[in-house]
Amino acid sequence: MNPADTSAILARLADTLESRLPAKGGDPASSYTAKLLAKGPDAFLKKIGEEATELVMAAKDNTPDRIVAETADLWFHSLVALAYYGLRPEQVLAELARREGVSGLAEKASRPQTD
Amino acid sequence: MNPADTSAILARLADTLESRLPAKGGDPASSYTAKLLAKGPDAFLKKIGEEATELVMAAKDNTPDRIVAETADLWFHSLVALAYYGLRPEQVLAELARREGVSGLAEKASRPQTD
Amino acid sequence: MNPADTSAILARLADTLESRLPAKGGDPASSYTAKLLAKGPDAFLKKIGEEATELVMAAKDNTPDRIVAETADLWFHSLVALAYYGLRPEQVLAELARREGVSGLAEKASRPQTD
Amino acid sequence: MNPADTSAILARLADTLESRLPAKGGDPASSYTAKLLAKGPDAFLKKIGEEATELVMAAKDNTPDRIVAETADLWFHSLVALAYYGLRPEQVLAELARREGVSGLAEKASRPQTD
Repeated sequence: MNPADTSAILARLADTLESRLPAKGGDPASSYTAKLLAKGPDAFLKKIGEEATELVMAAKDNTPDRIVAETADLWFHSLVALAYYGLRPEQVLAELARREGVSGLAEKASRPQTD
Repeated sequence: MNPADTSAILARLADTLESRLPAKGGDPASSYTAKLLAKGPDAFLKKIGEEATELVMAAKDNTPDRIVAETADLWFHSLVALAYYGLRPEQVLAELARREGVSGLAEKASRPQTD
Repeated sequence: MNPADTSAILARLADTLESRLPAKGGDPASSYTAKLLAKGPDAFLKKIGEEATELVMAAKDNTPDRIVAETADLWFHSLVALAYYGLRPEQVLAELARREGVSGLAEKASRPQTD
Repeated sequence: MNPADTSAILARLADTLESRLPAKGGDPASSYTAKLLAKGPDAFLKKIGEEATELVMAAKDNTPDRIVAETADLWFHSLVALAYYGLRPEQVLAELARREGVSGLAEKASRPQTD
């Protein structure tokens, strides 16, 4: 998979998740996500707590495949939450980029004058 | 921020986090991430549990800004874990893409013959 | 420590925690619990997520002392939550006893007639 | 329920959970706990993360009945973990009592001389 493909996946997945919202005609009978979204926040928020715990356990076991799979589960259910609240993964990525910029500036500012 | 910028952030952030590993010369005295990585897994895994709980609380409060900020915190600490275990966010995105493909195929397969 | 001592600890601890409530004059400057309670729910609820994760990690490491200590941390912060919401550990113990009774009856009911 | 009844419930429940261990003949087909214990740590540790999240959500909703029920769920699965690792709730209660004593002494020590 080339970078262009990976880069688009979060946005594309967010589009799909939004189409599963009850208001967009998501069908709980045929889609796992539509079912989660129809049940309301507690259903997918509980999954966030559960998948975080599973990621922690996979990490303690040092099993690379499970670490990747559980991180995917955790990010997936975060994306479901974002869709429910009308938010986009691009906003999360922008926040991460903003912090990186702030952090870079902070590090620069803390360098000795002679740098 | 245009899509190209957001798309590159996870890879760029992963590069930065890897440079904070003790083996890569990360300095615990000058970097939050280097400090977390130097302490070992329990330090950043605990943060994953903590940030997941904070995301759940922000969602229950229905506060968009905090939902975005807490999701960023949760993804950030997942990225720290990936860096520690020698894994990349691209692998997580590929896993999400793979599932989407499988799911798409599954939905296609379940359609009536006349579709 | 004899059974009578251990049995009373939850009730006694609950009494102490209640005295740390802002409305009961709890002083955030001199007590960890009073400080948590004064900050409001998110402060101690976050600790519940954090301590649950730490218990999971101690269990994965199979370290008996830490499992006991982290379970104590988790129960302690649950007791702080109960105090905040005007609830008592005796209600939780009664719920556990009720379930045990129901479960016992269910097992009895499912036994063959000849039992 | 009088205090004596509530006080004995944790010890009695721990005895029951221990009898559900595979080594003690616990039958996964007839008992929820035996099934959890037979599956191994990840099964019940995942529940600890899940129930902690559910307690947090019940607290955010300020629903007393659910707070009590979710705390009972959380403590129950902690007791399952203790049973699996050969530990007793009395050890957790003793740890809570020990901290209370230390805390009491610490508060006493910090009082002004004239107290």
